[in-house]
Amino acid sequence: MPLDPVSLLKDLVRCPSVTPADAGALGHVEAALAAAGFECHRVPRGGIDNLYARWGAKGHARSFGFNGHTDVVPVGDPASWSTDPFGAEERDGHVWGRGTTDMKSGVAAFVAAAVDFVTETPPDGAVILAITGDEEGASVDGTRALLDWMDTRGERMAVCLVGEPTCPDRMGEMMKIGRRGSLNAQLTVRGVQGHSAYPHRAVNPLHALVRLCDRLASHPLDHGTDHFDPSTLAIVTIDTGNPATNVIPAEARATLNIRFNDSHSGAALTDWLGTEAAETDAAFGTRTEVAVTVSGESFLTPPGPLTDLVSAAVAAECGVTPVLSTSGGTSDARFVKDHCPVVEFGLVGRTMHAVDERVAVGDVHALKAIYGRILRDYFA
Amino acid sequence: MPLDPVSLLKDLVRCPSVTPADAGALGHVEAALAAAGFECHRVPRGGIDNLYARWGAKGHARSFGFNGHTDVVPVGDPASWSTDPFGAEERDGHVWGRGTTDMKSGVAAFVAAAVDFVTETPPDGAVILAITGDEEGASVDGTRALLDWMDTRGERMAVCLVGEPTCPDRMGEMMKIGRRGSLNAQLTVRGVQGHSAYPHRAVNPLHALVRLCDRLASHPLDHGTDHFDPSTLAIVTIDTGNPATNVIPAEARATLNIRFNDSHSGAALTDWLGTEAAETDAAFGTRTEVAVTVSGESFLTPPGPLTDLVSAAVAAECGVTPVLSTSGGTSDARFVKDHCPVVEFGLVGRTMHAVDERVAVGDVHALKAIYGRILRDYFA
Ligand SMILES: [Zn+2]
Ligand SMILES: [Zn+2]
Repeated sequence: MPLDPVSLLKDLVRCPSVTPADAGALGHVEAALAAAGFECHRVPRGGIDNLYARWGAKGHARSFGFNGHTDVVPVGDPASWSTDPFGAEERDGHVWGRGTTDMKSGVAAFVAAAVDFVTETPPDGAVILAITGDEEGASVDGTRALLDWMDTRGERMAVCLVGEPTCPDRMGEMMKIGRRGSLNAQLTVRGVQGHSAYPHRAVNPLHALVRLCDRLASHPLDHGTDHFDPSTLAIVTIDTGNPATNVIPAEARATLNIRFNDSHSGAALTDWLGTEAAETDAAFGTRTEVAVTVSGESFLTPPGPLTDLVSAAVAAECGVTPVLSTSGGTSDARFVKDHCPVVEFGLVGRTMHAVDERVAVGDVHALKAIYGRILRDYFA
Repeated sequence: MPLDPVSLLKDLVRCPSVTPADAGALGHVEAALAAAGFECHRVPRGGIDNLYARWGAKGHARSFGFNGHTDVVPVGDPASWSTDPFGAEERDGHVWGRGTTDMKSGVAAFVAAAVDFVTETPPDGAVILAITGDEEGASVDGTRALLDWMDTRGERMAVCLVGEPTCPDRMGEMMKIGRRGSLNAQLTVRGVQGHSAYPHRAVNPLHALVRLCDRLASHPLDHGTDHFDPSTLAIVTIDTGNPATNVIPAEARATLNIRFNDSHSGAALTDWLGTEAAETDAAFGTRTEVAVTVSGESFLTPPGPLTDLVSAAVAAECGVTPVLSTSGGTSDARFVKDHCPVVEFGLVGRTMHAVDERVAVGDVHALKAIYGRILRDYFA
């Protein structure tokens, strides 16, 4: 009897697994997989629980991997929800609750598809699930912990599908074949404090900072590449905290975020920021410190066998060929891409992270069908 | 017997008259003046005490005015002082304590000079003192209150000397014949909040703000005028308070301070800021609010009889002709200038507002001699 993904989804939603809590969510996944013969390992790290599950032989050349997460973002004010955010109520053809789209439905659909597949037509190869409880948090002890553990154990996926929501409005319309990279830079400009009546006796760090920020924000990083939108730079905050209008402050800070495509690297952008800061310092007599955190390099899985496999399955089930996109924020695919080719396909994400997050019941079944077809085609 | 300005100074310093407290300071001034036949009026307003004193006939065409303050700035940490900041200790040829230079010595020296003058050589005219307890504070209920009161009572000064410290290093080297104006402008730029991965769906107020601030800070307001240094603009703070690097904020704020000479007015500069903000808004799609507070217009008492009078007295007593300057912050002369011609002359201000504020005993006597000579020459 086929495994009902909606039933598993409801079990998952009823676990209030707000990062870093697991609240029993991985237990439901593990129970379903173990019953179908998957070898399961918990991979805890830093207070986070993660689950690795494999059906079939370790190290098989045909090892299809799936990556997803069972943790969710906070619900905010429960009173503003139409339903209990952890109630998994079914109403108006939808299942309501935190995590229904991001991404407990994706996990439930793949688990259901994989269990049916290995039960009905046991393949010559391996089906692997790497499910984490730390995607919405720091993402330090989640998929990275699983991949580290896999490396030490000789566990490998040949390809990987990440089940995050990828469709803006309609089921099937988009898959992700890469992501822009992202870095944050904190600029700290130091000058010389002084009285605002005598600016020539001071060095105003804000005058340097606004020049530097305007130069950075005005500079077109690129015009896009074959598979990527143009890179973008956003100044997200500038803060000084000087309450005295007659005082020129000694220091001012800005933080900016760069989303960059495959024509850049975090290191090259860091160099560029340093060069611009040094030029501004030379003009203003300031000293600027640039502290960069690269949260992910850009990556691309170019169109080929893996993208064709997923695209064809989506087209067959939904009647629409998905756009190959690299838009959006970051996902754990940024870690998986160092392990094997990775693409992402999942639900419509419109209500993710929002109040009244919900998923159409039909979409959960459709997603299971798509994932099942991908598995059959991969091993065919 | 001549009145000893150092003795009066010590009485004043021993009153801890940190704004808005009077702590008995005006009482010492009033007692000395009343004993010499001055008609004294307390002019309280808004919790501040002020003193108006006139010797001679009200409304006389030859009415010499003096403006000063008995309030002082806080002492900070008393433990960092070498002496009790309200002890008025005499040591190493100096009187030590808060207010010794700014400006209880100026008040004491003028009171002593005026008492001696009207006693020894009663003039055909009036000598007026307008002494406030709110110069170091908001300056709303101090000299302005006195001038308002004078207007309603038909009391007028024909000329006025403000006794603030005016000499950078050596007694007699500088007098003030005007002051630059000062205004503060708060710029509030409103955009459209959004995700930093999709800046084209947002309107980033910081990108507009840094452009606007750079334009304003780079624009030379003028190159100075006959009696004034160039006007200056200092951005003193920019604040956003956005903790999320993945969010473009909806709003950002900056505050700037302009010190402007007699080629500008507060109204014209306000117009200029509005025009620049509107141009930036047109380019960025933002809405910028410019809130301006003019704390004082620039003013100038051009070289003429009053400046000659003070300059000659200083030269005769100190052997040095004072530079006619318009440098420095604001003073209550900015209010007096609407009443009558005003110049400023006083002590060396090096230790004003600092720990271990002190005055050379000889300078207090020299200042009394200068003020006495000014009175004699004015009425000669
Ligand atoms: Zn997610
Ligand atoms: Zn003062």
